[in-house]
Amino acid sequence: MNNKTSLNAIDHAVTQARNAYLSFKRWNVRQRAALMHQVADEIEALGPELITTARAETHLPEARLTGEKARTVFQWRSYADALALVLDARIDTADSMRTPPKPDLRKTSQGLGVVAVFGASNFPFAFSTAGGDTASAIAAGCAVIAKTHPGHPETSAIMAAAITEGIRKAGGPEGLFAAVASEGPEGGQYLVVHPAVKAVAFTGSFSGGKALSDLAAKRPEPIPVFAEMGSVNPVFLLPGMLENAAADVAKQYAASLTLGVGQFCTNPGLLFAPDHPSLPAFLEALRAEISGIPAAPMLHGGIAVAYHRNKTAILAHEDVSVLAEVVEQLPDSHGNPVVATTTARAFAANPGLSHEVFGPFGLVITYKHAEELLSIIQQLDGQLTATLLAKPEELEAAQALVDVLTEKCGRLLLNGFPTGVEVCYAMQHGGPFPATTDSRFTSVGPDAIKRFLRPVSYQNWPDELLPDELKNANPLGVWRTVNGILNNAAVSV
Amino acid sequence: MNNKTSLNAIDHAVTQARNAYLSFKRWNVRQRAALMHQVADEIEALGPELITTARAETHLPEARLTGEKARTVFQWRSYADALALVLDARIDTADSMRTPPKPDLRKTSQGLGVVAVFGASNFPFAFSTAGGDTASAIAAGCAVIAKTHPGHPETSAIMAAAITEGIRKAGGPEGLFAAVASEGPEGGQYLVVHPAVKAVAFTGSFSGGKALSDLAAKRPEPIPVFAEMGSVNPVFLLPGMLENAAADVAKQYAASLTLGVGQFCTNPGLLFAPDHPSLPAFLEALRAEISGIPAAPMLHGGIAVAYHRNKTAILAHEDVSVLAEVVEQLPDSHGNPVVATTTARAFAANPGLSHEVFGPFGLVITYKHAEELLSIIQQLDGQLTATLLAKPEELEAAQALVDVLTEKCGRLLLNGFPTGVEVCYAMQHGGPFPATTDSRFTSVGPDAIKRFLRPVSYQNWPDELLPDELKNANPLGVWRTVNGILNNAAVSV
Repeated sequence: MNNKTSLNAIDHAVTQARNAYLSFKRWNVRQRAALMHQVADEIEALGPELITTARAETHLPEARLTGEKARTVFQWRSYADALALVLDARIDTADSMRTPPKPDLRKTSQGLGVVAVFGASNFPFAFSTAGGDTASAIAAGCAVIAKTHPGHPETSAIMAAAITEGIRKAGGPEGLFAAVASEGPEGGQYLVVHPAVKAVAFTGSFSGGKALSDLAAKRPEPIPVFAEMGSVNPVFLLPGMLENAAADVAKQYAASLTLGVGQFCTNPGLLFAPDHPSLPAFLEALRAEISGIPAAPMLHGGIAVAYHRNKTAILAHEDVSVLAEVVEQLPDSHGNPVVATTTARAFAANPGLSHEVFGPFGLVITYKHAEELLSIIQQLDGQLTATLLAKPEELEAAQALVDVLTEKCGRLLLNGFPTGVEVCYAMQHGGPFPATTDSRFTSVGPDAIKRFLRPVSYQNWPDELLPDELKNANPLGVWRTVNGILNNAAVSV
Repeated sequence: MNNKTSLNAIDHAVTQARNAYLSFKRWNVRQRAALMHQVADEIEALGPELITTARAETHLPEARLTGEKARTVFQWRSYADALALVLDARIDTADSMRTPPKPDLRKTSQGLGVVAVFGASNFPFAFSTAGGDTASAIAAGCAVIAKTHPGHPETSAIMAAAITEGIRKAGGPEGLFAAVASEGPEGGQYLVVHPAVKAVAFTGSFSGGKALSDLAAKRPEPIPVFAEMGSVNPVFLLPGMLENAAADVAKQYAASLTLGVGQFCTNPGLLFAPDHPSLPAFLEALRAEISGIPAAPMLHGGIAVAYHRNKTAILAHEDVSVLAEVVEQLPDSHGNPVVATTTARAFAANPGLSHEVFGPFGLVITYKHAEELLSIIQQLDGQLTATLLAKPEELEAAQALVDVLTEKCGRLLLNGFPTGVEVCYAMQHGGPFPATTDSRFTSVGPDAIKRFLRPVSYQNWPDELLPDELKNANPLGVWRTVNGILNNAAVSV
């Protein structure tokens, strides 16, 4: 696992995955769900070695990793349980009396084929080898080749073995899942252009995601790529809330900004605060909060180097001032919390100030009035999230702001912070470009399965040969739109 | 309308559409549905001038155009009525007792923004200016700029006026819909790269669709393109059916192949027939049927020229023989029905034989046994449809064939013909590349709306400021997945 997989071996894995997919395709959603629960059981049963290995490879604390393991298991289980809902089964029964006669048409969804999954460094369990992309692709009925992240090869090997064992115990086809490693970009590029690969999921940097997406678009047969490429997740503090709760907001913002050494794609890197009599008190409270949070080791050396480089570039700007900076004698591998300030005018004039700094770095942008704020928001790139900190009575007047924000993000929060990404049906973890390559999909929650499904219609097909979810008797009890009406009953024809 | 629209005028239309979209965004689905029914009323009320104009511009017969008008109206109405179902509203209520507390999350779908629609020549109503792409984009809450097809400019002008009038009567924002004309490709290209355009829908040739798709992928902000680029819609005749019903199959195949002078993207251009004692009788019956169907004028001169060129190229092949050819003294503007034969071996060796010939041209490919057929199918490109003509008892043994066919097409038919494309929930009009650019979507049926929707989540948002479909009381009565359970009731929190 931690050795580089040769291109020949990758080709072999893809060929095997293609055959496994064709066999897995005959499994109904209940059988697929059982296989996923078996995989979840295997991950759940992994001993302390998993956490120890991941700690050594990622420097993430034990409590965080224990929680992330539970989240990963929950993803496999909840996506399994959601299968019947995401299929969007549709039945339109025949009408032989119509002119011309109306045929019987029934539509369900099937997997796209072999999916290449590129894991992230910052979630070694939940967004990596055994993460949400793998779980949702298997849920869709696809086979998966996971390109493991070089930051945690041993962790990936343990997870890959658990998935393989779960598939084996469930009687799944050999090769339905495989993990491949590659030091440089060649292995990943080879996967993306392989003719048998039909979709790609990626979580990581803009440059990485965009490169894979461009490569996929240039194939003789272009394939869909869902790349989640991060975000600066702006937070908008309105005057009423600033006046009312400056200290609370400062405390919570500092906590969200520095959680996990700021290594989240939903890290709130920008905070817009009004030029208001309470602003100095807020800034002082934020300075005090940040100063009390120690530096900590980042995921790996490359991330720490990039953090210091990107942070320094922004701090070098003449209109940017440091508000709080934790300076300790620490190795370069650590990330130290830093908050700086600038003005809306300077921010608007310098696009570089809106770039993501992956790590515990926050930029507070002071704005003069609502119009200036609105004008700045219109310039912002697409984001995973946007957050309003406002008193309820301020919100109604902010409708224009809300309208623009929904153009810019996938998830809109009120009086909370975006770093927690709940795994549930109503989660949208995906936003307008460049946050992701396709804002029509999410990579968290059961709807993530939809990225890897395509509909197939059967016209005048015999009941006994239809996929189970389309049969008259509805043996799986799934929800179906029958002649325009949603229900989970049998169809009488 | 029939004059070329300048790039300045296109830019103005897009800017106005962008503003109209932002205003339309505040309309709930019930209001949007009412606007769509108003547009349907206007189209329905159009007098005989519409049919007369379309006949003159497209040479399509009156009965066909009358039917297509009704289909167009039905699309606007049925997509309007489906809105509540395609939103996929999801609600996960808060749980403050959980550690950490679970937030309230609610997700609905909103329009992508301004959509550029490129109409087809062969359906001047249902797949053009007022066609399914425009109807589904407006249903999604988008604004539309329709690039009218130069083959029927006056028809487009009449339809554009009806849409504009419907929007006006419903109180919709000015500029929500606009039609632009352009002789060359510049106008269309300008639309696709315009920063305010957020999605593209296209129906037409592979070269046209692929060019627009490539252009969209190269934008600084790539945007989704749904291009439906046609198909050869293979038909597979199994031995039992051939033996039982040679004459019936020949009659129905000839009718489907020549319907509308073969100018359908679902035209069954290839028929695979077994080398069986009944084959000569089938071929003779097909020859007789085709010989009795007169040539007829095609949509426009360019299509007729391409038909004759593409047909001649295939007939020139040494392994292809003419079975039936209607030869009359007719102008070049007419398409004459032609059926040719070849062998599976020759077909496999010559990729050119699988290219679409848009018009009433069919190629019968004789195969020796099921294995040869399966091997050929594996070589086929993605298709909109695939059709099996088989006795029920033959079907079970053909499961391997069916498994491969669902990899190759969006709609699978049994003992029917693909030229009728029912407008209903269960229709899938879209297939693997190169039939379309994204097999995950359909361009016919209410699910076509999904192409232009993106989900937005609201976290801890006040009930009164949520979109109506997410409010506790469920004032619109839409179906929602509430904590994993589909229902259309109010939520008590």
